[in-house]
Amino acid sequence: MRILLIGAGGVGGAFAAIAARRDFFEAIVIADYDAARAERAAAVDARFTAARVDASDPESVAALCREHRITHVMNAVDPRFVMPIFDGALAAGADYLDMAMSLSKRHPEDPYRKVGLKLGDEQFAKSGEWEAAGRLALVGIGVEPGLSNVLARYAADELFDHIDELGTRDGANLAVHDEHGNEIFAPSFSIWTTIEECLNPPVIWERSRQDVDGGWYTTEPFSEPEVFDFPEGIGPVECVNVEHEEVLMMPRWLEADRVTFKYGLGEEFIGVLRTLNTLGLDRTDKVRVGGVEVAPRDVVAAVLPDPATIGPIMTGKTCAGVWVRGTGKDGQPRSTYLYHVVDNEWSMAEYGHQCVVWQTAINPVIALELLARGDWSGAGVLGPETMPPKPFLDLLGEYGSPWGQMEVAAKE
Amino acid sequence: MRILLIGAGGVGGAFAAIAARRDFFEAIVIADYDAARAERAAAVDARFTAARVDASDPESVAALCREHRITHVMNAVDPRFVMPIFDGALAAGADYLDMAMSLSKRHPEDPYRKVGLKLGDEQFAKSGEWEAAGRLALVGIGVEPGLSNVLARYAADELFDHIDELGTRDGANLAVHDEHGNEIFAPSFSIWTTIEECLNPPVIWERSRQDVDGGWYTTEPFSEPEVFDFPEGIGPVECVNVEHEEVLMMPRWLEADRVTFKYGLGEEFIGVLRTLNTLGLDRTDKVRVGGVEVAPRDVVAAVLPDPATIGPIMTGKTCAGVWVRGTGKDGQPRSTYLYHVVDNEWSMAEYGHQCVVWQTAINPVIALELLARGDWSGAGVLGPETMPPKPFLDLLGEYGSPWGQMEVAAKE
Repeated sequence: MRILLIGAGGVGGAFAAIAARRDFFEAIVIADYDAARAERAAAVDARFTAARVDASDPESVAALCREHRITHVMNAVDPRFVMPIFDGALAAGADYLDMAMSLSKRHPEDPYRKVGLKLGDEQFAKSGEWEAAGRLALVGIGVEPGLSNVLARYAADELFDHIDELGTRDGANLAVHDEHGNEIFAPSFSIWTTIEECLNPPVIWERSRQDVDGGWYTTEPFSEPEVFDFPEGIGPVECVNVEHEEVLMMPRWLEADRVTFKYGLGEEFIGVLRTLNTLGLDRTDKVRVGGVEVAPRDVVAAVLPDPATIGPIMTGKTCAGVWVRGTGKDGQPRSTYLYHVVDNEWSMAEYGHQCVVWQTAINPVIALELLARGDWSGAGVLGPETMPPKPFLDLLGEYGSPWGQMEVAAKE
Repeated sequence: MRILLIGAGGVGGAFAAIAARRDFFEAIVIADYDAARAERAAAVDARFTAARVDASDPESVAALCREHRITHVMNAVDPRFVMPIFDGALAAGADYLDMAMSLSKRHPEDPYRKVGLKLGDEQFAKSGEWEAAGRLALVGIGVEPGLSNVLARYAADELFDHIDELGTRDGANLAVHDEHGNEIFAPSFSIWTTIEECLNPPVIWERSRQDVDGGWYTTEPFSEPEVFDFPEGIGPVECVNVEHEEVLMMPRWLEADRVTFKYGLGEEFIGVLRTLNTLGLDRTDKVRVGGVEVAPRDVVAAVLPDPATIGPIMTGKTCAGVWVRGTGKDGQPRSTYLYHVVDNEWSMAEYGHQCVVWQTAINPVIALELLARGDWSGAGVLGPETMPPKPFLDLLGEYGSPWGQMEVAAKE
């Protein structure tokens, strides 16, 4: 296996650090628009080399694949570049993995009730081409989507006879402090992606609505607030509906009546996102400022601390998982949360990477190891819930970061 | 009188429209960095001509003064340019007026308790030079500071024996709606200046603290929230301490135990300002964004509607004034609000300018008329409270926009 890792940012760097401890691959070419950043990430292992790539150009991606005889392209840049990397991999005859899918476009007339172009639609539209070429695009294989989809498949296979709802729930008790001990505002994940996720109309899937738009519909941002009590000391966090890939992926392959995604943003963060939206600072089109042109959202990203650098000043744990409600194998009502928690102190001490990016990056490393072994395989554009979940969950434990499971009191 | 108006933005444009109806001057040269904008503002009256100026360069200002035999320089640009315009006017032997004073710098160690360089300090430091030259710098002669200082002097002269507090209070019930009737976020005054005022440590003056820093001290932003019930249908608005020139001016010339400024920002606006500060989007130093460099605060200003253009879609009234508490001429406790209200519908219909910029611009026109008549005169760096208030307040009525007065129920 010869891997091309595109993107040497927070997640790409953590991917390289995790992969460096495994022996399932022959080589990894780490490519970034910023060649110096790629070189820093490549310095940790003799099997790594660095390259420069323009991720917006499928030809640049394909040329790099051919030059290095790449078998698997690992996309670790922001989702604006999904399509050129996805197309470049296929053009070069490589398999492909990503952690976020092609972007959505809101419904032009009724954006807060109806779906427009959905997350992943552009990729799923090309599934036939990938199947015909005998190549696999394993999409959405980060932590969410990714591990959440694996856990949902596990619940469907092993724990439930009937599923009422597959509800991905993400929460944390992370805090970042400056050198004087004052808490500062420093999101632990790409603010560009977070704004995209949180201000787009959240999407929900319901079986009962399948005759309209296939069952998918949208709501206003931050809808259906709910306090979810996260495990391992994180505690209760306010969660709201957010547009996320799981809702577009799980209903294609798993049986459930309803599929949702709620993110534990917390009140302060919701307030910040609302304000950015109110002022137009979430805009991605360029505005003229004095003599230059700049996209306001890029300015927001530029003034905030780089998520890849806040690890040493961050404390707390992050939790990803899926809350499954329905009828258990014993015919009784069941409500179970299957989850994965990472403590920032542990990931910093063990890998030197902060917990949120580390938790994202471990999943594609495991997936690639399963593909190398032949435990996972396939052709077409497929999600992690199409693959057997047990070998994945076993490897998670072997990598030193096991998953967990808890029963959740039912509530209305 | 030959006036050089520097700045053809919202306030400069309204100044020109108001002055066009008066005959106390011979000529106004309207100068702006953007020559086209100056030409548009100059088109309304045969006595107006347009010019280009670099307000950051005292020589550019002085040269324009000499070329046009200017007697009075009227500064209507943002306060970053106070010192070069102020210096340029003196160099050319012209009198000078502004509506905001030279900027403050926070105390390096204890910014939320002690003053550093105060608003106007750089100008007051040169008062001797202006006196020696026999020239007048009439500073802070907009609405606040400006009319508020005139009203404070009137209260001290005519209504009170002893003043416990001179408290400037500013509030409005303005709203801006888009073409679909949805309320939008559109501040009615320069967001650059509003951020500067509201996020700097608010300053308060107390006679009892005169032995430390002359009686001036600072607090955390948005301190001492208080609901003030504004007249003429505006109603109750939450007001908080804000750094403002009145607090630095009034104690120099008027007798009072305490001088404050509170701005009726309202909860939503305070939330927006806090968020901009938390994220660092209020920063005025440039940050690198992709291939360009830009100051985040300039980006915020660029994405918001231009305050000069929102008049037609704005509704409501704005109120400026001073709440005076103390002992009346009859020896009894007295609590009186002296104020000036402008209805946006009226200012748009009558002048084609929105009420907030119109209310700012009328005051320097009146001041210049009083200087032309000889009713006001002086040399040095002086505030409006050094001049007789009655002729000013009379002209306000003659211009069609009279002031008002109401007793306020005492409260703790």
